[in-house]
Amino acid sequence: MLNEQMRLSLRKRLGEAYFRDDRETLVSYSYDATPMLQSMPDGVVFPRDTEDVAFVLKLANEHRVPIIGRGAGTNLCGGTVPVEGGIVMVMNRMNKLLEIDTDNLTATFQPGLNTKEFHLAVEAQGLFYPPDPSSMVISTLGGNIMECAGGLRGLKYGTTKDYVIGLEAVLPSGEVIRTGGKLYKDVAGYDLTKLLVGSEGTLAIITEATVKLVAAPVYKQTMLALYTDIHAAARSVSSIIRHRIVPATLEFIDNPTLRVVEAYNKLGLPTDMEAVLLIEQDGVDESVVAKDMEEMIRLCREEGAASVQMARDADEAERLMKARRSALSTLSRIRPTTILEDATVPRSKIADMVLEINRIAKKYELQICTFGHAGDGNLHPTCTTDARDAEEIHRVEQAFEEIFEAAIGFGGTITGEHGVGTVKAPFLEWKVGEAGIALMRSLKLAFDPNNIMNPGKIFAKSSRKRVVVNR
Amino acid sequence: MLNEQMRLSLRKRLGEAYFRDDRETLVSYSYDATPMLQSMPDGVVFPRDTEDVAFVLKLANEHRVPIIGRGAGTNLCGGTVPVEGGIVMVMNRMNKLLEIDTDNLTATFQPGLNTKEFHLAVEAQGLFYPPDPSSMVISTLGGNIMECAGGLRGLKYGTTKDYVIGLEAVLPSGEVIRTGGKLYKDVAGYDLTKLLVGSEGTLAIITEATVKLVAAPVYKQTMLALYTDIHAAARSVSSIIRHRIVPATLEFIDNPTLRVVEAYNKLGLPTDMEAVLLIEQDGVDESVVAKDMEEMIRLCREEGAASVQMARDADEAERLMKARRSALSTLSRIRPTTILEDATVPRSKIADMVLEINRIAKKYELQICTFGHAGDGNLHPTCTTDARDAEEIHRVEQAFEEIFEAAIGFGGTITGEHGVGTVKAPFLEWKVGEAGIALMRSLKLAFDPNNIMNPGKIFAKSSRKRVVVNR
Repeated sequence: MLNEQMRLSLRKRLGEAYFRDDRETLVSYSYDATPMLQSMPDGVVFPRDTEDVAFVLKLANEHRVPIIGRGAGTNLCGGTVPVEGGIVMVMNRMNKLLEIDTDNLTATFQPGLNTKEFHLAVEAQGLFYPPDPSSMVISTLGGNIMECAGGLRGLKYGTTKDYVIGLEAVLPSGEVIRTGGKLYKDVAGYDLTKLLVGSEGTLAIITEATVKLVAAPVYKQTMLALYTDIHAAARSVSSIIRHRIVPATLEFIDNPTLRVVEAYNKLGLPTDMEAVLLIEQDGVDESVVAKDMEEMIRLCREEGAASVQMARDADEAERLMKARRSALSTLSRIRPTTILEDATVPRSKIADMVLEINRIAKKYELQICTFGHAGDGNLHPTCTTDARDAEEIHRVEQAFEEIFEAAIGFGGTITGEHGVGTVKAPFLEWKVGEAGIALMRSLKLAFDPNNIMNPGKIFAKSSRKRVVVNR
Repeated sequence: MLNEQMRLSLRKRLGEAYFRDDRETLVSYSYDATPMLQSMPDGVVFPRDTEDVAFVLKLANEHRVPIIGRGAGTNLCGGTVPVEGGIVMVMNRMNKLLEIDTDNLTATFQPGLNTKEFHLAVEAQGLFYPPDPSSMVISTLGGNIMECAGGLRGLKYGTTKDYVIGLEAVLPSGEVIRTGGKLYKDVAGYDLTKLLVGSEGTLAIITEATVKLVAAPVYKQTMLALYTDIHAAARSVSSIIRHRIVPATLEFIDNPTLRVVEAYNKLGLPTDMEAVLLIEQDGVDESVVAKDMEEMIRLCREEGAASVQMARDADEAERLMKARRSALSTLSRIRPTTILEDATVPRSKIADMVLEINRIAKKYELQICTFGHAGDGNLHPTCTTDARDAEEIHRVEQAFEEIFEAAIGFGGTITGEHGVGTVKAPFLEWKVGEAGIALMRSLKLAFDPNNIMNPGKIFAKSSRKRVVVNR
């Protein structure tokens, strides 16, 4: 797909080290964190600056060669797998934190910047950038923006989309656009900024971003509520919300997840519980945080929690949060393949959804552990399986189809924070309808008339038929 | 432009009362709140439901007749003036509040619902919908969504865009799409919801919306800081932000505005002050609100406020806020024509921008009063003039060109919350560039290939050349 002339041209522009087409490099960029998905690129580029990006895009566009932008490849939807070959564009050289502006409470950076590194730099100034995907130690901000990453603090603080206010982006033509700025309000034309956030590399390559920052919460308290009844846990979530408390974190962990997490982390959690809520409140005022915690303890007890306990100290709180964040990696130790999904429902439907997931798991004789962000209805049903067992994988696929179907039925969506990628493309029509797909396709063409930007993502060659679920 | 067959067809579908083409009705819908702009429509329709909207759009699309969606017509950018004729679609019959969901903290309504009425209904449930454009007593939520209305609470709570999470919309083809839902997280494909918010009726007609609600603040305090030095006022704004306090309202009023507001409202404000900051903090905890207010009083004094005073009681606070909200209507009593703009800058540039506006006003011998949302850099330079005086109006136009130029120069934008409409279309290129305009045009075509949706808005026939400003 890459002819000799293109290779020469890329090598000349970027240098030997930054255009690679040796087999080892190609293999390294043929997969990402998504299980069971691999496809070889034809070349890999490492641009140094916006001009490099524009050069490569223009050339690729002229030759109709796919461009797959990539940060750390931690996504779970196959978003950075070069399913149609082409050039993987790795943004890790463009990783500068350009500015933290304490007067305007904004930060400006290049897309390759590591998420956790950015958090630490911002927090050192007494400021706070809330989006905290579980992969944040490895992930890049550019990847977070392209997938609209969420995390554990979404309920109170929102997701990546709520923070990005300005972008520099290179169109497939090589033209550079700038959207928004250090502006909390800007209605000059269509909101290209929010359109690019979550566009999964299918529209443009972003080369710089400006985000809003908020005041860092100074106080934080953590508690665990344990339940023998999953409904009581779900009722507690609703009750907290109904009482107008917005905790920073409101995580749900079901029994299968609990058992695995406990087995590997030895936190002393009682593994006979059906559900656990891990709740954190933060704020700039200690008494308000304390009052919220007291009220939430009362509400959890009222709804039938078997036990509610506060983390004794910051260390214990940190261990609990770490255990929760490590749920995916812990689960992945059980069996060879771990498939984590993120069906999302209105938060009043969490109990219904978890029970439905359990029913489906039983029907297909699978182990599905469910944990996730209960406060915003974003659940992560996670199947531990074995990719080598074709028959079992077929059942896994059927189960997830039913899970997506159920989420849609509850007024939910097929993906809350992971993106569509290749993995969920066949199901997108269930959520947005035929007219929605057609419209999105035409928006894609407006940006990318030759379909070179991450082709094969978001849009499926054919949509999956909806299963008739026998309930 | 409307042939007899179309008139018959519309009359038959909608009924005599709801398709109008009599002269009186046409004149009534030939203008909106924007000064010096009028253009006759060919017909006016009042749809009852989504099916009516789809019927009219499909018919108009087949006949290539412009459709201008309209709420209460309170916009200030010419957004609802039928500059190319066609059919004005008035949404006031579709004004139902469909649901307030206290479990999911969402509300769902039709676009014709009055903003203030909605606020009251939500607040009766102990909930809160923050966007509060100054026109909210008259405006509709559909209009607020199409223009992405802001208001006085934007700094702390964001604008309309931050609240809309689901839409039903009719495309020009008559197809109905649904975006988002009661979901705090949804990344299934491109974010059509946020793209439609602020699209000024140029892409689709929205027929239903779902918004997030938040807990109602229970406590509120209001203060006034008076300054003999405009820089001291601007420094106070920066200092408050830098000290990580986010007040609910942080409004700026300059001396000319102050004098006019005082003359008509008799609030006892000292009219020799150069600038006033009107500051409000709210919250669910009384002590936190009180602490923030104390700290802000201290900071304003520290930066050189001549006087800082708390509103004695809720009544006085309400009178102050009302005076601020009435600034536009008060200013409009001075001279026959009032032109209010909304150039917006990063908030650290407020003092520079106000001084620049004053310089420009002096240069062109005009009276320009400036007030606005200092906390988010959104200023409203307002010129009192006379549309009958062509020579003066020419100077007004030149002055506003320079004001936009200055805003862009400070890293700002030509419109923070009013929209582009017809009024600012010639200046859009200054903000988004040639490539940005081309991209936006192609997005418009993706929705509306026949250009029937509110034509003549956002995109100008030709862009204004940038003035070379002599500073």
